[in-house]
Amino acid sequence: MTFNRDKNILIVGLGLLGGSYAMALTRKDYHVRAICHSADTLEYALSHGLIEAGTTEVTPEAVAWADVVIFGLYPHIFKEWVESYQSYFKPGTVITDVTGIKGDFVREMQALLREDVEYIPAHPMCGKEVSGVENADDKIFNGANYLVTPTEKNTKEAIELCRDLGWVLGFYRVVEMDIDKHDEIIGFVSQLTHCIAITLMTCNTKEHLEKYTGDSFRDLTRIAKINDVMWSELFVANKVALLEQMKEFREQFERLEIMIAAEDVDGMRQLMKNSTARRKLFDK
Amino acid sequence: MTFNRDKNILIVGLGLLGGSYAMALTRKDYHVRAICHSADTLEYALSHGLIEAGTTEVTPEAVAWADVVIFGLYPHIFKEWVESYQSYFKPGTVITDVTGIKGDFVREMQALLREDVEYIPAHPMCGKEVSGVENADDKIFNGANYLVTPTEKNTKEAIELCRDLGWVLGFYRVVEMDIDKHDEIIGFVSQLTHCIAITLMTCNTKEHLEKYTGDSFRDLTRIAKINDVMWSELFVANKVALLEQMKEFREQFERLEIMIAAEDVDGMRQLMKNSTARRKLFDK
Repeated sequence: MTFNRDKNILIVGLGLLGGSYAMALTRKDYHVRAICHSADTLEYALSHGLIEAGTTEVTPEAVAWADVVIFGLYPHIFKEWVESYQSYFKPGTVITDVTGIKGDFVREMQALLREDVEYIPAHPMCGKEVSGVENADDKIFNGANYLVTPTEKNTKEAIELCRDLGWVLGFYRVVEMDIDKHDEIIGFVSQLTHCIAITLMTCNTKEHLEKYTGDSFRDLTRIAKINDVMWSELFVANKVALLEQMKEFREQFERLEIMIAAEDVDGMRQLMKNSTARRKLFDK
Repeated sequence: MTFNRDKNILIVGLGLLGGSYAMALTRKDYHVRAICHSADTLEYALSHGLIEAGTTEVTPEAVAWADVVIFGLYPHIFKEWVESYQSYFKPGTVITDVTGIKGDFVREMQALLREDVEYIPAHPMCGKEVSGVENADDKIFNGANYLVTPTEKNTKEAIELCRDLGWVLGFYRVVEMDIDKHDEIIGFVSQLTHCIAITLMTCNTKEHLEKYTGDSFRDLTRIAKINDVMWSELFVANKVALLEQMKEFREQFERLEIMIAAEDVDGMRQLMKNSTARRKLFDK
C-alpha cells in the first residue's frame, strides 16, 4: 500500500499543520478534502485552493469518502472525535496524525479503534509561533524531521504509506521510532526547550529588556510565544519523560553554578569544549 | 569632542570584533591602524584593506599616533596591555573597548590609568559563533545594541565621542548605562543564555540527537558553540550578578516542574500567556 494520487485524503482540523498538509498535498495534485469546525476556516481553505471540498459537519459521507484520514487536532479532541465518529470510517481506512506525544496516548487510541481501521501515528517536527490556517505554509516541512512511530499493532503497509506521506509532504528526513523512545526524545529536544524558553522569558520582571538584548536572548526565547492550550496538554501527557529531562537539565545547570562560584575555569572550559563539539554535529 | 575623520584610530587586537570595527571604519573613510600579536592576522587585515597600516610590535610611535584607541582584547589581556604600555599614549588619548563585563573591571582600569588619558567603556552586543579576523563582518552591527557605560570619572566629551562611534559603526541602538546595571543585565540577557545553551547541549549524552531535533533545539543551542577561553573569563568576572540570575532562573524552572508534576494546567497556561506577552515586546 503506497501513498499515491488514487487515495482520497481527508484532513480533520485545519490549523497551522492541517492547513500546511492540505497546501502541500493539493499542490502535488492529491485529492484533499477537509472537515473543520469553523466556517471561516473552511471558507479560507476553499478560497485559497488548499482543498477541493470540505464541510463543518461530520457526516458519514464525508468520512467514508476517505482512504486516508489525517488528524490535525489537539490530542484530547482527536480522541473524542474518534470515539464519536469512528463508525463512519470505511473499512480499511488508514488514519494518521500530527500529535506531539505518543506512548500511552497511542496505546489508548489503538485500543479503542475499530479492528478494520488502522491508526499509524506520526509526528511532524515543525511549526511556527503563530497558529491557524491563514498561516499555513508548506515550506515549514523543508529541513524538518518527520517521525513515524508504529506499534506492534501496525501493518507493514500502513507504516510504508505513512513514510511515503512524510516524503511527499517534503520533509528533510523520515525517521521510524518506537512510541516510548519518541516521548523520551521529544521530552528532551522539544518540550524541555519550550520549558526553558518560558522560564527564561518569565524569571526576570525587568522592563524594557528588548532595548538591551543581543541575538542570543532572542534565539533562546523565540519559542516563548507559545500556544498555551496545546502545550499545557502536551506537557501533562508526557509528564513522566518530561520531568525526568527537566531534572537532568536542572542538575547539570546547578553543576555549572557550582563551577562558576568556585571559579573553576578548567571545569568550565572542559564543559564548553564538550558543548561546542556536540553542537557542531547539528550543523547541516 | 566628536568622532570624526580627523581622528587617528588605533585598534588593538584584530579578532572578530576588532576586525569588524576596522572594516566598518575603513569603509567609511576613517584612518584606521592596528596592533595585533599575529603576523598572519596583520597580513590578512592589510591585504583585505581593513586597515591602512599596522604592526605586531607595540612601539611608542604606533601608540602615540592615535587619538582614539579601541581595545578588542580579552579583559585580562587588555588590563595587562595598559599596565605595560600606557606610557606610550599621547596626552588626551581616549581609549574604549569591547569588553563584555564592566563593574569592578572598569573601576580597576580607570584607577590604574594615567590621569591625562580617558577610558570610556563600551560593550557592542554582537558576535558570531566563529572568531578571528577572517570572519570580520561589519554587518554584525546592524540590528544590534551598543552599550556605553560611563562612570563619574568620564567627561561629557568622551561619552559623546563613544556614542558617535556606536552610530558610525552602524549599530541599531546606542544605549547609555551604569556599569553595575550593565553587569546585572548582561548577566541575564547574555551570560545566563550561554549557561543555558551549554547546559542543554551537555545534559543529555544520547547520540544522534541531530536526527530528531526540530528548530527549537537548534535555536536554543546555536550559542552552545562557544569560545571557552573568553566566556569562562567573563563568567568569573561577573560571578556575583550571573549567579544571582542563574538562581532566579533555576527557581522559576523548578516552579514549572512542580506545576507539571501537579498537572496544574491553569498555572501553566497563565505562565505561558505571560511568556507570550513578554516575548511579543521583542518583535522588531
